[in-house]
Amino acid sequence: MKGFKFAGIHAGIKNNNQKDLGLIYCDKPAVAAALFTRNKVVAAPVILGKKNIKAGTCQAVLVNSGNANCFTGQQGIEDATACSKMTANSLDIAQELAFVSSTGVIGANLPMDKFETGIPKVAALISHNQAQNQVDDFADAILTTDTCNKIVKKSGKLNNKEFSIMGIAKGSGMIRPDMATMLAFICTDVDIKAQELKICLKAANEKSFNRISVDGDTSTNDTLFALANAASMVKIGDVESKKIFQEILDQVCFELATMVVKDGEGATKLVKITVKGARTKQDAFKACETIAHSNLVKTAIYGEDPNWGRITAAAGRSGADVVPEKMDLFFDNQPLVLKGEWLGIEAEKNTGLIMKKNEINITLNLNLGLESDFFLFCDFSENYVKINADYRS
Amino acid sequence: MKGFKFAGIHAGIKNNNQKDLGLIYCDKPAVAAALFTRNKVVAAPVILGKKNIKAGTCQAVLVNSGNANCFTGQQGIEDATACSKMTANSLDIAQELAFVSSTGVIGANLPMDKFETGIPKVAALISHNQAQNQVDDFADAILTTDTCNKIVKKSGKLNNKEFSIMGIAKGSGMIRPDMATMLAFICTDVDIKAQELKICLKAANEKSFNRISVDGDTSTNDTLFALANAASMVKIGDVESKKIFQEILDQVCFELATMVVKDGEGATKLVKITVKGARTKQDAFKACETIAHSNLVKTAIYGEDPNWGRITAAAGRSGADVVPEKMDLFFDNQPLVLKGEWLGIEAEKNTGLIMKKNEINITLNLNLGLESDFFLFCDFSENYVKINADYRS
Repeated sequence: MKGFKFAGIHAGIKNNNQKDLGLIYCDKPAVAAALFTRNKVVAAPVILGKKNIKAGTCQAVLVNSGNANCFTGQQGIEDATACSKMTANSLDIAQELAFVSSTGVIGANLPMDKFETGIPKVAALISHNQAQNQVDDFADAILTTDTCNKIVKKSGKLNNKEFSIMGIAKGSGMIRPDMATMLAFICTDVDIKAQELKICLKAANEKSFNRISVDGDTSTNDTLFALANAASMVKIGDVESKKIFQEILDQVCFELATMVVKDGEGATKLVKITVKGARTKQDAFKACETIAHSNLVKTAIYGEDPNWGRITAAAGRSGADVVPEKMDLFFDNQPLVLKGEWLGIEAEKNTGLIMKKNEINITLNLNLGLESDFFLFCDFSENYVKINADYRS
Repeated sequence: MKGFKFAGIHAGIKNNNQKDLGLIYCDKPAVAAALFTRNKVVAAPVILGKKNIKAGTCQAVLVNSGNANCFTGQQGIEDATACSKMTANSLDIAQELAFVSSTGVIGANLPMDKFETGIPKVAALISHNQAQNQVDDFADAILTTDTCNKIVKKSGKLNNKEFSIMGIAKGSGMIRPDMATMLAFICTDVDIKAQELKICLKAANEKSFNRISVDGDTSTNDTLFALANAASMVKIGDVESKKIFQEILDQVCFELATMVVKDGEGATKLVKITVKGARTKQDAFKACETIAHSNLVKTAIYGEDPNWGRITAAAGRSGADVVPEKMDLFFDNQPLVLKGEWLGIEAEKNTGLIMKKNEINITLNLNLGLESDFFLFCDFSENYVKINADYRS
């Protein structure tokens, strides 16, 4: 995308030979907005980022995997600051324009020697102009337990002028404090104010990253970062332009979020739960969230069991208003429960076939009101337990 | 215990040959109190029980396993009522004194023919006076996926007169809507008013069954039921007597709750998390609860990994006030984190040895205030996934 450059290298932060240091660079300072984890235990780069983002400008983002720089105290802040300084020096930009982001094991200090040699190296790739299309290298460099990189690019049109949005994410097991975390970087060539960008980012986040669950744990490093460099000269300001931009941004974030769930640790199935007919929006959210996080629901889905009792009971304990005798439950278009009554062995057999698919839509209609919401989640396999029991050993 | 009789038989509700129908009988109407699940989806016997308990008297409790009589609509209510009527007739007592309780698979109607033959049979054991000490049969008859029955008996003294409390529970995987559930029955020979009994029961429940987690799902049938028959002639009424009674009741409930967690589905370890130094009682509870329910913490414990990052990060997302730089974390008496700083490889090794034990105490001191709380939970193994993925197949 015009005006953005990407690079990714193996700097030696990870013990294997995989890439572990990535860089995004903008030809000129870009408008920037970011959302950070709501966890009260946050990593050093998040502390720094929260402070620096207030100015609403950024020209470079350095991201490392293999070490989250979390629970590292004052040293962690100093290390993150040093990384930002080295990045700025190598690219010859102002230090406050160079952001840093980290993901990986927590509790260990950054191996600063690797950064001292790595940063000039990855910056040199940018300067030598070799990196213009090396998005893949960047996307690879930010991965931890992910099994694949995650890049989505979409274009939109406004007054016959094209604009683009590209998103790059990492995350597998949403949100694992230990591998620390979900990171996503959005680059767009529209011309937008920082404040507006943040509003759009928040809205997109609500319908994507805030609606997914792999294991329910939220991380110390979660970051959603957006950069807008105005290169397309498409101005986003009035209602119509914001609507069109939001639409494309929503799609990019939703597709990235879906990729994260699909790549969930040990996941074999992607499930979308939709709760309809809720009395309030909050009820719809609570019911979705509780179902998506229920280990009993997730293990049943892994077992390809259309276990309607677990789904309805999860809704029952969610705090949402529910009336058992009013509930309808569908797997894709197949009803299994209508007005709280199980439809019998034939319906269960049909549902059983749907459960064998890799992607399943479950719809619970509470029949109490007009509000609805959804959540994306994955099933829960022995493999999740294995990955997470053995992770540090 | 004087005045209480127990029996349990195989009535054919379960497909295997295990006992599935139990009965508690009191020689004369006893004072009764009960606490029920907070799930909004509740089983028929809970709907009935909530209504009947208001009178505060009970003479018999019929409990079946193998079928939860939940999501069974009007038919379910009629079946539960019929069971209560048959029990009353067989024992020659008033119908409103005969309570019923069910646990097992949800969504299927009770096999009434089995109850029609079973109830007179189990009642006959009571009448023939053979059952006086057959507590074990009763305790066996109420089990589902439990691997062992759960009975606790304790005595106390008040003014040199002895009183007793016996508790019988079932539950494995706290709280599984599908196997529906945690049930506990408390029988005591004290002389107490129904209202006072309920207050004591609530207090005991707060420190036991409300502080355990196997998988975080709450069930449609959860019931804690207490009967007091005054046979010991120990009157509980003044402050001192209530204190002594409460103490013994707390012990009985706590030991039963511990047995439930130990017998958790797939569990290999029992963990007590204590959060100290919280700013508010609610903060202490929230931090405990979130840690006890975290899949990442539970899988780490299964892997015998003292993963302090996951524990502190779970506290961080719990909503409780936490300051990372103030946290201390202990495994038994071994500190691993002090003032937010990891104590290094030697401390980690020592903690690793503690993690090999079957029972582990974890203490997180937030160092922000004076409040504390605890939770009992178990680890999370591949076996949990297997049990719950394959349960209905």
